[in-house]
Amino acid sequence: MNRAIRSAVQAMSAYIPGEQPEDGGYVKLNQNENPYPPSAKALAAMQAELCKVGVYPESSNRIVREAAAELYGVAPEQVMAVNGSDEMLRILCQSCAGEGDIIAVFTPGFTFYKTLAAVQGANVLSIEFGKDFRLPPLPDLSDVKLIFLPSPHAPSGIAFTPEEIVKLLESAPETALVVIDEAYADFGEWTAIPLLKDYPNLVIVRTLSKSYSMAGLRVGLGIASTEIMSQFDKVRDYYNLDRVAQVGAAAALRDQEYFNANIEKIKATRTRLIKGLKELGACPYESQTNFVLVRLTEYDAEKMYLKLKDRKVLVRYFSTPQIADCLRITVGTDKEIDTLLAEMAAILKEEK
Amino acid sequence: MNRAIRSAVQAMSAYIPGEQPEDGGYVKLNQNENPYPPSAKALAAMQAELCKVGVYPESSNRIVREAAAELYGVAPEQVMAVNGSDEMLRILCQSCAGEGDIIAVFTPGFTFYKTLAAVQGANVLSIEFGKDFRLPPLPDLSDVKLIFLPSPHAPSGIAFTPEEIVKLLESAPETALVVIDEAYADFGEWTAIPLLKDYPNLVIVRTLSKSYSMAGLRVGLGIASTEIMSQFDKVRDYYNLDRVAQVGAAAALRDQEYFNANIEKIKATRTRLIKGLKELGACPYESQTNFVLVRLTEYDAEKMYLKLKDRKVLVRYFSTPQIADCLRITVGTDKEIDTLLAEMAAILKEEK
Repeated sequence: MNRAIRSAVQAMSAYIPGEQPEDGGYVKLNQNENPYPPSAKALAAMQAELCKVGVYPESSNRIVREAAAELYGVAPEQVMAVNGSDEMLRILCQSCAGEGDIIAVFTPGFTFYKTLAAVQGANVLSIEFGKDFRLPPLPDLSDVKLIFLPSPHAPSGIAFTPEEIVKLLESAPETALVVIDEAYADFGEWTAIPLLKDYPNLVIVRTLSKSYSMAGLRVGLGIASTEIMSQFDKVRDYYNLDRVAQVGAAAALRDQEYFNANIEKIKATRTRLIKGLKELGACPYESQTNFVLVRLTEYDAEKMYLKLKDRKVLVRYFSTPQIADCLRITVGTDKEIDTLLAEMAAILKEEK
Repeated sequence: MNRAIRSAVQAMSAYIPGEQPEDGGYVKLNQNENPYPPSAKALAAMQAELCKVGVYPESSNRIVREAAAELYGVAPEQVMAVNGSDEMLRILCQSCAGEGDIIAVFTPGFTFYKTLAAVQGANVLSIEFGKDFRLPPLPDLSDVKLIFLPSPHAPSGIAFTPEEIVKLLESAPETALVVIDEAYADFGEWTAIPLLKDYPNLVIVRTLSKSYSMAGLRVGLGIASTEIMSQFDKVRDYYNLDRVAQVGAAAALRDQEYFNANIEKIKATRTRLIKGLKELGACPYESQTNFVLVRLTEYDAEKMYLKLKDRKVLVRYFSTPQIADCLRITVGTDKEIDTLLAEMAAILKEEK
């Protein structure tokens, strides 16, 4: 092993994202992609921008920050546009957590937070959810530098209440930032953004991957106080968003008519999916996201995942103890969900 | 100041990239952009990809790594594709330099290396060039973790010899990586890539910004041993390149016919620029890049920069002591260079 590499990096494992089969033909319900295309206005803006890729992009991503600021009712200086929300999460860890510092995460949850902590040589304080995925009793947080909570929660799909988020914010010490990862908030009923006024240690992370159908474009957002953002801005790769992503993201954020129609369609299909799963005798959690976590009470979840894969339907299975009897299913189109439900029904019938 | 932010980050300043005036109409010779468009094949590939941006990109950037591996005669596992070479430089610092570690840089040089060191809380060992920009006598490097050298050198444009690079590689301790930043190597006469076979501590960094006319697309490359790359891969944001950038970069790397014609045009204009600067009585350095550093012996360089800017010609001025009497001029089109030379001549004449 090359001795130039930090021991923290040598010791860690790489993060492994969801499956991406190379051969097509799958009904792909495993990565919470949006089944509908991005805004036509965004596509047109990106197409028009292609001929300019020889020239450096504007380095502050101004047009994206302005569009987001207008939409969310904050100042452009409170917004950072990033190369996928992963970059924002990384900047947070790099800015706040040194060797031996503590980062708090909730489990089960997005395991990438732990990967980022490992790169920094930081320690992870794991706070476990009960099976109801409500905010659990909080341990002593006084030595913690960062607290990550996805809200709505992944992989359960459960939305926390404003009271739960406020409780977390008030339990955090002044020396810690509380990061609410709102990757799925557009599919839910509220956002923590208005809390920024009262809680200067709050950082909101957003992505255009899911609700704006742009997983392949890599655009995320960070929203916090101007003071905190000016610190993070030093850590950001200073040309972090290419020209195509900048114009596409700005146009998508401004096309709220298309966005809202898209969200409504997904919510309707989510209702259909939950109903169908219940009819199969499974126990879906209520969801405020574009996926549904379903507990299989009478069938092995891993086996169901594998059998669905054989039948060209890809869903997500986690071996994490609390959810090892669950599948996470992306809300696709009505047609995709009907295929999933029919294949599940066939697999259950086979067994009888 | 928020106490959650690491003191190293609070203490540092942000990197400031080159000027990007919002009003157009400038002859822009300050950021070493390529005046010719990217490969038409790359543009076509990007256009065809736009409709797929709803789906996550392939996370290892396989098509880019394969195209680069074929071109440079290395294995795809030796290549990392990154969101601009800045990301590779950041990954290098994050992977190798902890708080209090030492990073060696050569000055004058790319100041971003120092910014990245500051984020890590690492110390910088500065090795000064003489006015000839040959490799200076090397200090004791035994405690150094990373050594950054651009080759060809920026901002002088001078190419180091293979012997100079080998001397640096052999002077570095086994616990250090030597990073040769070949951002401009395509405009020069040799590359250090074949040295990878003999020097396992060598890392090459490349960019498609300059020679492939893709500054606005943000694609860079790292090339090193498979062993080192497997470590860096843990630190990379795992969906770091969007779909459009992936297909554009892969297509551009495979369109060597267009690439070579483009490079030849720029080399011819570079000769024309150097000749013109000499005729004005200035002292241009020989260049193996797409820019020329010119020493103004009889006119204040900062004043010339400002007067050129008034006349809508943008070049780069650095207040760094060794080059405070110099301007760095990008090799644009023949027409742009003729405009620059005519404006310089007019400014010099005005003064007499």
